[in-house]
Amino acid sequence: MAACAGTSSCRAKTRPSSWPTRERNSLGSAETADYGLLSPAWAGTRAAALTSDEALLQAMLDVELEWLRVLASAGLINSGIPDAVAPACQASRYDIADLAARAQGGGNPVIPLLADLRALVRGDAPGAAGPIHKAATSQDILDSALMLMAARTLETILADARRVETALGALARRHAGTVSVARTLTQHSLPSTFGLKAAQWLHGIGQATAALENTAASLPLQWGGASGTMAALTTAADAADRSPLALAADLAGRLGLADPVAPWQTNRLPVTRLGASLADLLAAAGKISNDVLLLSRPEIGEVSEPREAGRGGSSAMPQKQNPVLSVLIRSAALAAPGYTAMLQAAAGAADDDRPGGSWHVEWQALRQLLRLAGGALAKLAELTEGLTVHTDAVARNLELAGPLVVSEKVMARVAPLLDDGVPGQGKKRVQEIVARSLAGEDFAELLRGIVPAGELADQEITELLDPANYLGQSDALISRIVSAYPGRMNA
Amino acid sequence: MAACAGTSSCRAKTRPSSWPTRERNSLGSAETADYGLLSPAWAGTRAAALTSDEALLQAMLDVELEWLRVLASAGLINSGIPDAVAPACQASRYDIADLAARAQGGGNPVIPLLADLRALVRGDAPGAAGPIHKAATSQDILDSALMLMAARTLETILADARRVETALGALARRHAGTVSVARTLTQHSLPSTFGLKAAQWLHGIGQATAALENTAASLPLQWGGASGTMAALTTAADAADRSPLALAADLAGRLGLADPVAPWQTNRLPVTRLGASLADLLAAAGKISNDVLLLSRPEIGEVSEPREAGRGGSSAMPQKQNPVLSVLIRSAALAAPGYTAMLQAAAGAADDDRPGGSWHVEWQALRQLLRLAGGALAKLAELTEGLTVHTDAVARNLELAGPLVVSEKVMARVAPLLDDGVPGQGKKRVQEIVARSLAGEDFAELLRGIVPAGELADQEITELLDPANYLGQSDALISRIVSAYPGRMNA
Amino acid sequence: MAACAGTSSCRAKTRPSSWPTRERNSLGSAETADYGLLSPAWAGTRAAALTSDEALLQAMLDVELEWLRVLASAGLINSGIPDAVAPACQASRYDIADLAARAQGGGNPVIPLLADLRALVRGDAPGAAGPIHKAATSQDILDSALMLMAARTLETILADARRVETALGALARRHAGTVSVARTLTQHSLPSTFGLKAAQWLHGIGQATAALENTAASLPLQWGGASGTMAALTTAADAADRSPLALAADLAGRLGLADPVAPWQTNRLPVTRLGASLADLLAAAGKISNDVLLLSRPEIGEVSEPREAGRGGSSAMPQKQNPVLSVLIRSAALAAPGYTAMLQAAAGAADDDRPGGSWHVEWQALRQLLRLAGGALAKLAELTEGLTVHTDAVARNLELAGPLVVSEKVMARVAPLLDDGVPGQGKKRVQEIVARSLAGEDFAELLRGIVPAGELADQEITELLDPANYLGQSDALISRIVSAYPGRMNA
Amino acid sequence: MAACAGTSSCRAKTRPSSWPTRERNSLGSAETADYGLLSPAWAGTRAAALTSDEALLQAMLDVELEWLRVLASAGLINSGIPDAVAPACQASRYDIADLAARAQGGGNPVIPLLADLRALVRGDAPGAAGPIHKAATSQDILDSALMLMAARTLETILADARRVETALGALARRHAGTVSVARTLTQHSLPSTFGLKAAQWLHGIGQATAALENTAASLPLQWGGASGTMAALTTAADAADRSPLALAADLAGRLGLADPVAPWQTNRLPVTRLGASLADLLAAAGKISNDVLLLSRPEIGEVSEPREAGRGGSSAMPQKQNPVLSVLIRSAALAAPGYTAMLQAAAGAADDDRPGGSWHVEWQALRQLLRLAGGALAKLAELTEGLTVHTDAVARNLELAGPLVVSEKVMARVAPLLDDGVPGQGKKRVQEIVARSLAGEDFAELLRGIVPAGELADQEITELLDPANYLGQSDALISRIVSAYPGRMNA
Repeated sequence: MAACAGTSSCRAKTRPSSWPTRERNSLGSAETADYGLLSPAWAGTRAAALTSDEALLQAMLDVELEWLRVLASAGLINSGIPDAVAPACQASRYDIADLAARAQGGGNPVIPLLADLRALVRGDAPGAAGPIHKAATSQDILDSALMLMAARTLETILADARRVETALGALARRHAGTVSVARTLTQHSLPSTFGLKAAQWLHGIGQATAALENTAASLPLQWGGASGTMAALTTAADAADRSPLALAADLAGRLGLADPVAPWQTNRLPVTRLGASLADLLAAAGKISNDVLLLSRPEIGEVSEPREAGRGGSSAMPQKQNPVLSVLIRSAALAAPGYTAMLQAAAGAADDDRPGGSWHVEWQALRQLLRLAGGALAKLAELTEGLTVHTDAVARNLELAGPLVVSEKVMARVAPLLDDGVPGQGKKRVQEIVARSLAGEDFAELLRGIVPAGELADQEITELLDPANYLGQSDALISRIVSAYPGRMNA
Repeated sequence: MAACAGTSSCRAKTRPSSWPTRERNSLGSAETADYGLLSPAWAGTRAAALTSDEALLQAMLDVELEWLRVLASAGLINSGIPDAVAPACQASRYDIADLAARAQGGGNPVIPLLADLRALVRGDAPGAAGPIHKAATSQDILDSALMLMAARTLETILADARRVETALGALARRHAGTVSVARTLTQHSLPSTFGLKAAQWLHGIGQATAALENTAASLPLQWGGASGTMAALTTAADAADRSPLALAADLAGRLGLADPVAPWQTNRLPVTRLGASLADLLAAAGKISNDVLLLSRPEIGEVSEPREAGRGGSSAMPQKQNPVLSVLIRSAALAAPGYTAMLQAAAGAADDDRPGGSWHVEWQALRQLLRLAGGALAKLAELTEGLTVHTDAVARNLELAGPLVVSEKVMARVAPLLDDGVPGQGKKRVQEIVARSLAGEDFAELLRGIVPAGELADQEITELLDPANYLGQSDALISRIVSAYPGRMNA
Repeated sequence: MAACAGTSSCRAKTRPSSWPTRERNSLGSAETADYGLLSPAWAGTRAAALTSDEALLQAMLDVELEWLRVLASAGLINSGIPDAVAPACQASRYDIADLAARAQGGGNPVIPLLADLRALVRGDAPGAAGPIHKAATSQDILDSALMLMAARTLETILADARRVETALGALARRHAGTVSVARTLTQHSLPSTFGLKAAQWLHGIGQATAALENTAASLPLQWGGASGTMAALTTAADAADRSPLALAADLAGRLGLADPVAPWQTNRLPVTRLGASLADLLAAAGKISNDVLLLSRPEIGEVSEPREAGRGGSSAMPQKQNPVLSVLIRSAALAAPGYTAMLQAAAGAADDDRPGGSWHVEWQALRQLLRLAGGALAKLAELTEGLTVHTDAVARNLELAGPLVVSEKVMARVAPLLDDGVPGQGKKRVQEIVARSLAGEDFAELLRGIVPAGELADQEITELLDPANYLGQSDALISRIVSAYPGRMNA
Repeated sequence: MAACAGTSSCRAKTRPSSWPTRERNSLGSAETADYGLLSPAWAGTRAAALTSDEALLQAMLDVELEWLRVLASAGLINSGIPDAVAPACQASRYDIADLAARAQGGGNPVIPLLADLRALVRGDAPGAAGPIHKAATSQDILDSALMLMAARTLETILADARRVETALGALARRHAGTVSVARTLTQHSLPSTFGLKAAQWLHGIGQATAALENTAASLPLQWGGASGTMAALTTAADAADRSPLALAADLAGRLGLADPVAPWQTNRLPVTRLGASLADLLAAAGKISNDVLLLSRPEIGEVSEPREAGRGGSSAMPQKQNPVLSVLIRSAALAAPGYTAMLQAAAGAADDDRPGGSWHVEWQALRQLLRLAGGALAKLAELTEGLTVHTDAVARNLELAGPLVVSEKVMARVAPLLDDGVPGQGKKRVQEIVARSLAGEDFAELLRGIVPAGELADQEITELLDPANYLGQSDALISRIVSAYPGRMNA
């Protein structure tokens, strides 16, 4: 890293003089790094750290090291080798920018990594370098490392998702009685409750989280050797009392990954499904952010994002408080479909026994989805835990909707009283007073004028027009949703 | 249109004179129809018929009619109404192009459909029109009808997928001993078998089919009323002894759909998951088509598509036989990511209590994925059941790869014999003869020249160089995959 | 189907008995047609008719017929042939569903079309069938027909775009003085004018329209023969005094298409550029629809869509008027990126001298973009020509923003007066009164309290706080935009 | 950067103690950086350096500094200020990871950058910090900086594109006489030349490059102030003799950007067009890579990528040489459609006077397209300049196609001789011998057998069957394409 140029200490890079050097025009260095300056949706979050180049590099080294442990436990290599190699399996010892630039040569980062790993081991423990990467291929390491990185990042994402579930469950219960106006195709429709809105937010997050949990539990190891036949391993394992497939299963267990039916070098469903699950979670988060952005508009004003020093302010316009959390969550949701399209396109473009080109597309697309989901869920947790609901504004907007917000109910209740034996006549008469009300007349007054004497007491009409009496299954639905997705923070 | 050719009456449209007519500039008519002329990937297949406008219209009418049956069974409407309405619930009685043009008015086809349905019923059975669509909203009908149409189409798709599984399983077993050359990044790598290639095709299809079956089993009913509160239904069901949620569950059961936790008007995971599952199946199909296209190139010639009169020929170039099945399957796989991106984008753009605009995007995107998957799987079934494997060409291409195709094994077996106590020296000596072999010398000869006397008998060297002896876990993997996805044609 | 309703003959299909029949399981018929029932964004519009299967079929027949005219004019075929073939070149004589189903055989619709065209001609004029399609290939016909169909549809789209430009220009000028509140990241920011908003809408449409006009003017003919070498034509043209390239140029001229540098069978920029141009226009339309959807929310209420009988109403909720035009325009904009992704993916997947699979993806994607743009622009023309601006609501929302909407200006004007030699002190004092104002105090009062005596007269402070005095370059920008994109309806 | 933590020297960060500090959980540091480890398509290339976070930061600082120069030249600020601020406008003085993490607060990196820039200036030149960013808004800076970064990167991309044009032009001319077999839908079709293939590659690159040059020449400045009205600038410029629009035009000129009709804060065509142009170039590059991957398969073997030490090798399989350049170019082309979909989606989702969320999506998507195009074109230049064409394999594959490769010509030439007055009979007789030839008989023999005596001399039949005599317009098309896109390396 250029940041260290000219200093003697800095990060201690132990680049041995025997490292393969090559003439290159490349510019691999800190000056070419991306720290997330254009990605405020996830820069600086825990997911960013868990998906950095260094984190991926560590995952690759973890896979290599655990494989040595499998080989040693099977008696296929000297039992001291894993520990001798372990010190070299620390990502911080590598010059990542240089690895990245050299990855052009073979088309993936495993090849230069192996050169440097072996060089380091030869420095640390001369005899131990030989068995490194035995019977493995680049794709085994990189696919497995990506799954490992995903598994680690999903822990954070799922933990944040559970925080969101808990927060939304609480919000739903707290506002089960906050009567609000529902909106469909942007217009006021019927009465509802803010609690049901929050419950539906939970419904979205809960469904997506449950699916993502399933996906997280089945992230598979990749282990097939150069062409997916495990040929080198079969040769190497001749001496062992365990089959190559058993050795692979052992590795999967050590890494916390699933043991798949077969190598999936050309069958990329594990990648597309993970991507789709992340995108589904982002879509659910995006839906919430859309609503918060709408409801926090000054004219609507039903909610406010939690304030924090340094967030959402504008120096030029000091009166302005931007809903930045929602803006960034929404931006993450808007980006996701492009990445899932890349993953699907890559899966469908696979060919041969290991694909050329399509595999290479997946890596960054999958990582970006992990970052976007990680960043968005962290922000969503903060947003939902700190959201302020302005019940006065909720009431004001419902009031603005006027008595016609229950016209559906009035029609159902009153029209039959006015049919006088002519089907449909009652409906027409109610439509008449709706039209007059739209033109400015008082609806309650008009309604009282047409209800046949003795049919509905004044109090009944008042109750009929009360939006709080037309909430349908709001309570029942809140209960069902909250029960289905209880949040599991303390579990 | 063929349907009308030569008949005097054509389809008897019973458009009653009382139908609401409207001034319009629209051009709704057969002249504006799309018969799939630009979609040979699915035109003319069973999936095309199951997803036509008429099929969708029928599904909408089915939902409306079954809902009347639910209401009648709960005693909420007169028990004779469903049968009185039933004759009008035949899609063939409607002018679909006219409905489509009128759908612009409300933004969806349910609104004009209801007008026409009621008009027909008023003609057939004057008193029965009133309860139609009681307490439902457009989105309830259209979402549920799309799920119903999907369920019907998935039966065909899954049946074809099982045919493919069966065919690939047979192919894998039949060619377990057909030694071939594996290819990675387009180049010859190691020996493998054609059986393992077929098994990996099965692995892809099997994984995707299993996931799609899960999805198919959980396609949910949509039933929430105008704003997702079930308010109108709550009012209407006052008199019933069943709750609104129980009535919805009854409807779900009658339609063969799942009963969801809550309406999902703004939580679109059921749609995105279905789309992603179809795309995954298309990607697996696409992978196979890519391979068939490669392997049927004249210079490679390992497989041929099944021939059928009228397919793949060229009048200008009579010697040419195009692999049209694979071309069309590949085209379907290439189109899928765009549609999944639309579905994800729509899900993330949802807002309010029913979304404006994003919902409308889903319909056609979801249908196209059903069509593409349906068309592709029908073709893939035909392709895999009739694929010819040219074992002579398989052998020829392996021969072309030369003895170095087992150099990995030679290195593992021979290098240690040559170290003479200097680790790595043996490897270098093998690399030397590999280089000389690449330059034209005979590898077997060179190998014999460096093997220390007494170490490897001539016969052992011959066996070492036989690709058939370096197949790794080919057999075991074929068995695992075939066992995992046995195909279920006769189940 | 309406086209046939009540007629005894319906469309006269002259399917000759000599037509090649084939055993097929396909279901090609009107029952499998798509009339746009799921596409209210474009069903029933002029663009739908111009892009129907029939319209495409006509374009293919037009290309075949004009090519015969080129050949005849060059003396390469009998001069009477074009007129003898012409009667068969009417799309209405073909069974499109049947063609679509048979297109599976060769992978594109040209092959079955030629069979039927020749059969018809043999019926009409026995000797004239021979030269049909001479030296052409399927891709020549289909690519050229798609360009021709695009050219015809673009006329309508561009005409509607000009209507929109004219309407928006008028709106911008009319509301140049309608002071409004600008919104950034959903929050009130500074004063602006409704005229500038309309002008910026025009800016978007104008830019995209100008680019689309350029694209429309350069849609190229495709003419390369079976493999892009024009080999058959070279042989055929031996006898002519014009070169094959000159003959192709003649055909381009007759069809109103551009004569390209070379066949573009594998270089698909003409397709991707057209798709991107249409998507850009849809994005500009989408932006407007987003704003109309926001501004017509009941709490904001600044605009209303034009009302039309049968549009936007809700039978269940009679008080509700949905902004359906904007909903459908927005849905079109949301769908576009998926289609452009398909076109780009297809272009990048091309291979060989004519691509297998990727070419096939383009057809439907390109047509859908034409339909979406056509439908959206027709609706946008209606929307912008009939949009009602509620100036009272515009004023009310500006009022809601309060005096702090000009705080940026107050800061610039007043802070320097309060520095007392300490840079930054004035700014802090203004920030103080802004904070107190946000807490409820009267800003004008506070401001008067801190302005040093003699610095700003009372009237000056009043003027300082008047949003109408802080409109910046609103007028100048409106003028620049309106001048740049004047609309050309009457040109 | 954490890498420097605890060291006193490292990169000299002059973070003044007065910097605003904030409590944060963020992990902004080198450990979270992305050096391109998963992006071998562009890591280590010149485009990577030109689009790094540091390069973007420099562009933002350049915009801020040039704006001060404009203000100074207009007499609106003290003439010494720009030079006093200049030393702080060096990107290397900033802690980018920290800026990235703090960008979450306001949703974009400009806000924390301004805080740090002002702090640095207050340290360097206390009085000069005041006018920084005067009358500008975050979007002005970031949009303009992105355009500036794009302009700088496009220089490299276009230079590489011209290298590719030159190389392909040379290849086309050199192989104008290398007769080859064309392939359509993967199968051998007609004779062609390798020169025409190279010319068509040039056609694709040339078209896309010309379009990208146009785009590069019109990248616009963004300058609108907080809400696009230029209000603050209007106030500030009161004292100047130049209008706000003239000041913006001056800035555009200084930055080498175009002066747009109006701010385009919500009209994103400049972004989508740039993205689409880059994607078009990537598609053209992808097409070439697809062909190289196919043609370098061992069974086809018509081309080889240029070899370079360290590229394409495999340690496990020493005989293997992977076409890594093409693999990586193809991967770039496969990724592009997802990014263009993001840009289009963002453009269509814009709302209000500055959009919330959609704008934020563009930044990374646009940058990735620049990187992918930059990386792919650098590799393509190397690939096309060093491509080896194996003319012997080209000839062998043509030979494999057999004499039927000219059957189209034989049909045209011979069939008319065999009609004997019965139209179509001659065609049938030729088809007969084609069928017999496909079954194994010698075509030339068969042909001689049916040609009527005296019609075609033996030598004429030999010439008729020579593929070199059926190349159509290969030469003419090569000339046209090479003339149209001559490459301009030395221009």
